[in-house]
Formats: sequence, C-alpha cells, structure tokens
Amino acid sequence: MSAIRVTVWNEFRHEKNDAKVKEIYPRGLHQVIAAALATDSDLEVRTATLDELHHGLTDEVLAGTDVMIWWGHMHHPEVSDEIADKVVKRVWDGMGFVALHSSHFSKPFKRLMGTECNLLWREDDKRETLWVVDPTHPIAAGIDQKIVLPRTEMYGEWFQIPTPDEIIFISWFEGGEVFRSGCTWKRGKGRVFYFRPGHETLPIFHNPEIQRVIHNGVRWAANRTP
Amino acid sequence: MSAIRVTVWNEFRHEKNDAKVKEIYPRGLHQVIAAALATDSDLEVRTATLDELHHGLTDEVLAGTDVMIWWGHMHHPEVSDEIADKVVKRVWDGMGFVALHSSHFSKPFKRLMGTECNLLWREDDKRETLWVVDPTHPIAAGIDQKIVLPRTEMYGEWFQIPTPDEIIFISWFEGGEVFRSGCTWKRGKGRVFYFRPGHETLPIFHNPEIQRVIHNGVRWAANRTP
Amino acid sequence: MSAIRVTVWNEFRHEKNDAKVKEIYPRGLHQVIAAALATDSDLEVRTATLDELHHGLTDEVLAGTDVMIWWGHMHHPEVSDEIADKVVKRVWDGMGFVALHSSHFSKPFKRLMGTECNLLWREDDKRETLWVVDPTHPIAAGIDQKIVLPRTEMYGEWFQIPTPDEIIFISWFEGGEVFRSGCTWKRGKGRVFYFRPGHETLPIFHNPEIQRVIHNGVRWAANRTP
Amino acid sequence: MSAIRVTVWNEFRHEKNDAKVKEIYPRGLHQVIAAALATDSDLEVRTATLDELHHGLTDEVLAGTDVMIWWGHMHHPEVSDEIADKVVKRVWDGMGFVALHSSHFSKPFKRLMGTECNLLWREDDKRETLWVVDPTHPIAAGIDQKIVLPRTEMYGEWFQIPTPDEIIFISWFEGGEVFRSGCTWKRGKGRVFYFRPGHETLPIFHNPEIQRVIHNGVRWAANRTP
Repeated sequence: MSAIRVTVWNEFRHEKNDAKVKEIYPRGLHQVIAAALATDSDLEVRTATLDELHHGLTDEVLAGTDVMIWWGHMHHPEVSDEIADKVVKRVWDGMGFVALHSSHFSKPFKRLMGTECNLLWREDDKRETLWVVDPTHPIAAGIDQKIVLPRTEMYGEWFQIPTPDEIIFISWFEGGEVFRSGCTWKRGKGRVFYFRPGHETLPIFHNPEIQRVIHNGVRWAANRTP
Repeated sequence: MSAIRVTVWNEFRHEKNDAKVKEIYPRGLHQVIAAALATDSDLEVRTATLDELHHGLTDEVLAGTDVMIWWGHMHHPEVSDEIADKVVKRVWDGMGFVALHSSHFSKPFKRLMGTECNLLWREDDKRETLWVVDPTHPIAAGIDQKIVLPRTEMYGEWFQIPTPDEIIFISWFEGGEVFRSGCTWKRGKGRVFYFRPGHETLPIFHNPEIQRVIHNGVRWAANRTP
Repeated sequence: MSAIRVTVWNEFRHEKNDAKVKEIYPRGLHQVIAAALATDSDLEVRTATLDELHHGLTDEVLAGTDVMIWWGHMHHPEVSDEIADKVVKRVWDGMGFVALHSSHFSKPFKRLMGTECNLLWREDDKRETLWVVDPTHPIAAGIDQKIVLPRTEMYGEWFQIPTPDEIIFISWFEGGEVFRSGCTWKRGKGRVFYFRPGHETLPIFHNPEIQRVIHNGVRWAANRTP
Repeated sequence: MSAIRVTVWNEFRHEKNDAKVKEIYPRGLHQVIAAALATDSDLEVRTATLDELHHGLTDEVLAGTDVMIWWGHMHHPEVSDEIADKVVKRVWDGMGFVALHSSHFSKPFKRLMGTECNLLWREDDKRETLWVVDPTHPIAAGIDQKIVLPRTEMYGEWFQIPTPDEIIFISWFEGGEVFRSGCTWKRGKGRVFYFRPGHETLPIFHNPEIQRVIHNGVRWAANRTP
C-alpha cells in the first residue's frame, strides 16, 4: 500500500514572536508534530505555514495530501478565503482533516461544520483529564481509560458544533468544566477529527499520549482499508 | 404562547417565465404553501421572494422570523452572499429552517451543512413513495406508513449531506432509486429540516399530505416547549 | 388533549430500612417526585413500588401509563422477568421511560439498551456540575447553562451504553470524573430518557432544578404533538 | 498480526429439508460463506450449526471467535437462552457480530438491539437494488454505487431497530418498498453489522458482491487497528 501523505499546517507566528512559546517549540509546533509522525514509516510528512506563499498550500501540495493537520489561533482571518475553500473542497474529495485545539475557529473547520464553533475558555494552567468514552475506537488505541495533562488552557461547553458522528474523549477541567474533546464527523468523502489539547504556551505536543492520539487520528482520517 | 412567525421564501421565477408552472402556481408556489399554513391560527405567515429588495429578507424580517421555509432552484447564485450569511446566522441564533426540494443546493442550506449536497436526479414524472422510517417523529404525525406521489422528479443517492440527526422519510422511485427524503439536523440553536418533494412543474405543494408534513416541520422547527 | 398518565416506580426499600434515607424521604422518594409533577395539571400521576403485588404494575396499570419513571438500586434482581418484559413491551408500544440514577442497572433499562450499562462509581459526597451540551433541547428548558449539586455520589465513564441519540447533560465531578448524565434513545414507538442524579442518601429529588428536568423529561417522553 | 478467527453460524435446517434449498446450498449456506471468506489468508474460518451440541457454540468456541456471522430463520426459539446470552456477552466483551437477513429476529440480535426488530416482508422474487449511501465506509469498499440482485425476498420499512450508528446501504424493491439494508451499531466493546440480503431459496450467497460486503463486514467488525 502506498504511503499516507500528511501535511502539518501551522500558523507559526507565536513561535517567532513570543519568547515563552519559542522556548517550547523553537522550530514551530508543526515540527514537533511532524517529527512524532515521521517515526511511522507508512507516513510521508511535510509541513506548511501561514506566511509561505499560498500559506504553503499550492494546488500541488493539496492534491498530494491525504491527511491535513491544522493548527491556527490568532490569525484565522489572514488565511485567504480561496485557500480555505480549496482545503474544504479537498476534504469533500476525500482528504482527512485533523483540527487541533484553537483550530475550532479556523476557516476550514467552521466551513466544514456549518456552525459558529464557539465555546467557553480560560487560561488557567490547571489540570485536565481526557476520559475515553469510546474505548474501542481506533483513535483511542493505546490509551488506557484517560489522559492526564497537569496544566492546560480550559475549554468549556456549550461547544457549538453539529452533533458529532462519534465522541471519543470528554475532558474534565480542574476549574469545574467539561468539554467534548475528541469528536469525528464525515464530510463528503473526507473524515474530520477534532482534538482539543494543544495550547502554544504549554508543551502539550511533546506529550507522548497526545502524539499517540494525533497519530491514531491521522491513520483513521486516511481511511485506508486493509 | 405567542404566534410562530413563518416566512415562506421562494425564488419565484419559474412561475413568471414558464407557462406550465404558472398554470399550477399562478401566484407562486410560496402562496400555496403560505395559504396551507395560514389555516393554523398559531402561525403568522408572510412571504418573501428573490426579486424583492434584499430578496425580501431585511434585517427586520429576519429578526421577526421564527421559521423560514426556503424554495430555490435555478438562481441560487443570485442570492447575495450577505443575505445568505444573515439567514445562516439567524439559524445559529434559533430560527428554524425548512429547505424544500431543489433548495438542497441553496446557499443557506449548503453553508449550514458544510458539504456539497450533490445528488442524482432525473426528470421522469414517475411514481415516488415516501416511506416513514421514524413513525413517532412529530414531523410524521398524521402520515400513515407512506405518502404516494403519482408523478415526481427523481432524486437519488448518494446525497452528499452530513449524517442526519434523524431520518424520517426514505423515498422509493419507480425508476429504481432511493433517497433520504426527510432529514433533520441541529445547527447552533436552530433546527433544520430538509424535505425532498416539490418540483415546480408538478402540483406537489397542493397535495394535502405534503402540506401536512411541511406544517409539521414548521412546528417542529419552531421548537416551542409547551 | 387528554392528560399524560405518569407512573412513578420506586424500589422503596432504603426508605424503610435506613434511618438516614427515611429522614430525607419519609414516604419514599417516589412521593417527592410525584408531588413535584402533580403541580402540572396536564399530568395524572400515580406511584407503584417493588413490594406491591406485581410490583404495582398490573396489566391495567401498564396499559394506563403514558410515561413511567423508574428508580431502582439494590434489588434489581427481585423485579420479576415477566414484569420487566411487560414494561419493555409497553415502551416498544409507545410508553415513555425515564430511568433515574442507579436504574442504569435495572432490568427494563438494560433490556432496552442491549448493553451491560456498567460504569465507575464512588460515594464521596462531593460537588457535581451538570453542563448543558444541547441547550435548545426541550429537556433542558429552564436550565441556564448548568446545574450545580453540592454533594452527590460519583458516576464515571466508561458508561457502557449504546451511542445515545442525543446527549443533553455531561457531568463534572469534583473528584476528577465526567459522565454522560442526560441521554435519550428511541426504542420502538417509545422514548427513553436516562438522567443520572438521584442518590437516596442525599436530598437530590427535592432540588427544584432536578425536578424541572424530570418534569421536562416526562413531557418529552410523552411525545404529544400539539 | 494474528489471524481473525471467524465462526459462521447457520440454522442449517432448510438445506436438509427442502429440495430447492438443498440444490442451491447442498452443504449448507454457511459452507458457501465460509469458503468465500477462506480465500483471505488473514482469516481463520470455522462453522457451527443449530443441531450440534450447544449449537456448536461451546465456551471454547466462543472464546476463540473474533467475529461471528449468524444466519437463522424459522427456528430462532430453538436457540437456547443460555447460548444466546453467551453470544451477547461475547459481543459486549469485543466479538464482532454480523447478522444476515432473517437473523433480524434471532435471539442474539434482538437482545443486542433492545427492540422488536419487526419489518414488512413478502416473497416475490423480484428485483432489489442496494444503494450505497456511505460510499467511503470500509464495508462498502469495492462496491460501486449499488448492488443489483435480480430476484430477492422483499423486506420493507418500518424496520423496528434503534437508530443505527451508520447506514451504509438502502434497498429499493421492485414491488415498491425501501429498507435500511446495511446498518452498524456498537454494543459494549463489540461491533454489530446487519446486512439484509440472503434468502435461502435464492443463490444470494453465491453472488460475489454480496460475498465482498460480508467479507468487508467481517474485517470491519474485527476492529483491528493497523
């Protein structure tokens, strides 16, 4: 079977402008995610970022991507409508789409959902526990009952998304909130996975369990039938 | 309890340009739908059409609409992006939306779904039977097992929609196809109902059972808790 | 429209055998629930308990019940298979079924689900917050964002239920867990609502917001179309 | 990765008592299904039938089965409650379950569903077309848009099942009916797939496309993560 071609897209601004973020992700959080995936020889991983020409997403790159991972935060409006629509179109045509953390507000994700995707949030650097509520789902493979993150940003309900096809993780936050943290939808021929963790000021993407879930999510979104 | 304020929106071009359609719906199909609904004293019904200023959908009209019924066909692109987005926003804020027939390709419906909403179709004027697959759903109230339409346009699968929250009707077509003809979704605080029947060259909207389902759909989409 | 006939079923043993429970619910928790519902003149409320002949559920009572509320805990096996099957059959024929708290392990609920319905639990008398994740659902009417219960028993995931048709509440527990606390399913012509709160050693059923949700649940399960 | 151990269970009475059925399936329809699966070297296939001791389903066989295929028709009540419950328990513990055709009324399937599983039916030996409504689902792999069966028994809606997690096929029948012919559910740690085709008096299980779907269904129900 041919390789699964993955493109990790990152806004890549915080890492250049904020010393704290730079320390955690000196080359950008996309590089940490890409490196974790690259240990799987079935995957061919490349990256793309906002400030590249066409945000790094030329027609050729899009056509050659089986699964796209997306991380955006403060600069969603700077993603051109044209590129956002091309990404959405590729999902309809079969590309998998893994939206991380604050990408709930990204143009491609909102257009795929058809909703506002609003939520509660608070920077409080307290504990989050992601409970597995669908333990035999391939995206939860290797995760035993829960993932504990000692310090995270809080996201709370009501998360304004369409009814998920599947809910895999529900988060508990020390400050008193809950959140549907791992959700899937089908859109056309493409599979979409939203995964909550990932604030830029915390080393979330260095966590092996988070890397494992993203890796599982990529393989699930690629929808390769043995 | 206050009245449910319904706006029936129609493209209203076929009825002016096509003698055959004009004969069936001399004043426009929106007037036939509105008249059927107006028999319910809990409803306050008005209409709006494409060629009115702002397509008849001023901010005031939108703010004063609890449920919108939409019928469009050949002129979807002429609906301005601005108005389409305002309709979508009103759904997120709680307005019900009932999309009829070829409105599967309308701007508001596609933006609410996040998919292409493509389907198979053929004008063949043969029999359609809509089977009830969720008989206790309020939208199927008063319909006994099925609705038979002697002559309709055919719509076939694959219908490129997100997984419906509920499927109420599945159609059988004499020519050999099936279709998920009555589907619901939640989008934000609004409820969406898609109902397939309704070709402009056939007197579908004069059919009392079709009127009954649209009426049920309006009351369901209004989401009034007793 | 005719009245909605409600039967509140309770095991009614703890209240007789345990002084602490007796203090909170001297006449049984079913009487507190019934009294709360009886304020609605559209409802006709009666009760039934385990130690009555046929557990109070004769064919006549079952045939005359539109919605049954069920509370069981330690004595599930004492409910006869015959009565449990009759309750299930009535749900298939259209009776609503509201299962409270430890009734997740009751015979009727398990037979309706087709799963083991196991979960985590711990008596710790700490805080629970039920977050609304489907704010426009009729069962959440009148509840603003969340319900806070200062002291409850903990129920945690993985809750071994089929995919709910709808999830209305997700609970946060002070001890670190989450739980899908308000879920609905259709079974035949009947509607099923599971609602988590309700431990017998705590005055949960005296809480007006909990009473409100149960009341909403009864009206929803009755499925009366205006 | 270790082999997927499949047990094909068949009532195996028609083939012995009915000359017409015997001609189509001389050694039983289970042998035709087993032979088709055995071409996949990842599968280890055995069979079991009603008249064997314990219906061929000893504790050892059950413990050694990753996916069970079930075909029953006229003798559902002869399957012992004890064995039926053991099959259900194995599904909860992770065994896949593929229910074919008239197995909608089998004890294990009904207990897993929690509903009556009734439907319309008619022996009319006319055409059926199974339309794919979820074309990227692994169970539809290799099937292009639809499967046409020249002569089948008719099954019609309302099919009294819980809301499926996924609907993959919807059937069109020449006589005028539709049916949700390919549906999936999760039950505990096990995956359940119902697939409609398969009447004993017709050579349905010799059809390569039907064999392909059953094969896909087995692999999906085994839930092996690469």
